[in-house]
Amino acid sequence: MTAIDFWLSLGSPPSYLASARIDEIAARHGRELRWRPFDIRAMLEREGIRPNVTYPRKGPYARRDWERTARLRGTPFRVPDPFPRPSAPAMVTFYAIENDAGPDAAKAFARDVMAAYFVDNAPIDEPATLARFAAKVGVRAVDEAAGKAALEAATAEADGSGVWGAPFVIVDGEPFWGEDRLDQVDLWLERGGW
Amino acid sequence: MTAIDFWLSLGSPPSYLASARIDEIAARHGRELRWRPFDIRAMLEREGIRPNVTYPRKGPYARRDWERTARLRGTPFRVPDPFPRPSAPAMVTFYAIENDAGPDAAKAFARDVMAAYFVDNAPIDEPATLARFAAKVGVRAVDEAAGKAALEAATAEADGSGVWGAPFVIVDGEPFWGEDRLDQVDLWLERGGW
Repeated sequence: MTAIDFWLSLGSPPSYLASARIDEIAARHGRELRWRPFDIRAMLEREGIRPNVTYPRKGPYARRDWERTARLRGTPFRVPDPFPRPSAPAMVTFYAIENDAGPDAAKAFARDVMAAYFVDNAPIDEPATLARFAAKVGVRAVDEAAGKAALEAATAEADGSGVWGAPFVIVDGEPFWGEDRLDQVDLWLERGGW
Repeated sequence: MTAIDFWLSLGSPPSYLASARIDEIAARHGRELRWRPFDIRAMLEREGIRPNVTYPRKGPYARRDWERTARLRGTPFRVPDPFPRPSAPAMVTFYAIENDAGPDAAKAFARDVMAAYFVDNAPIDEPATLARFAAKVGVRAVDEAAGKAALEAATAEADGSGVWGAPFVIVDGEPFWGEDRLDQVDLWLERGGW
């Protein structure tokens, strides 16, 4: 069986909410899981979908839904202010860390960055913030060029896999979009599809 | 406690999928439920959201998601062809029936129309189809003017209540959008919020 791909944007609240559940789901079914940050902007532009918070009614609803879902799951969360901030720099750093120190270090960095952004309102687009969290997982010289190339390759792979939103989970070729479809991901793994 | 409002579009697959579960959820918590068809077109235009199937990637994904969710729940379903058809005529007839024969007759009509559309590919925008299903619940003279006025009033009420998508469930003022949030509706009723 191939690994489960967890496509996420480090700046996306539903990606953050999903990140709090997805490892446990994969582990329970004995499956390998790969965290794959990608740059969603070009895909959304091509689709003609704007960031959630820019819609006059869907925007306020989305905030309420994220907060309600976070409370339900006991996941610390608040909508950052300002929101959104650019998340590409954090994802460049993620891949630089993955290249240098491996996927576990990169995942730990991603968790730290998202917690800083979605709990403590940290400026995750600022180099000093990213350097601090990279150092925390042992990477003191971030190779930005390598990280940028890896982010571009990951984004192209996501695009080629039919990904168009975040989070997006692909299990044995079956696509699931959204934090609110993780229950189906769990069932799909349990039953091997239906 | 006030009734739960189930805002739906009779032409919307996720509304149909939700309609297969929502009565049982409300009944289990001893709550009254009102089926409230409304015309979603003006709201979506104002939001800048197009019908799901018109998006290049979200569209095919949505079809797959509807089919997968229907299989999971054992709800008979196929995407109509052509899709979408205008659903306003069916909703006008719904309210004409509600005025004439009460909410139970109108709900039975709605179930019949959606099953015909989403299982048997019936042309639910044709007067003969609607007249046949109206007659089935005992209404042989459909007052279209009254039905149209009631649909407009319901749509205005939905708009005033913050509704912007379908299905949309409001429980004691708390809004839930989407078939995939019915589990939260169920929990909200069980716990009285969180």
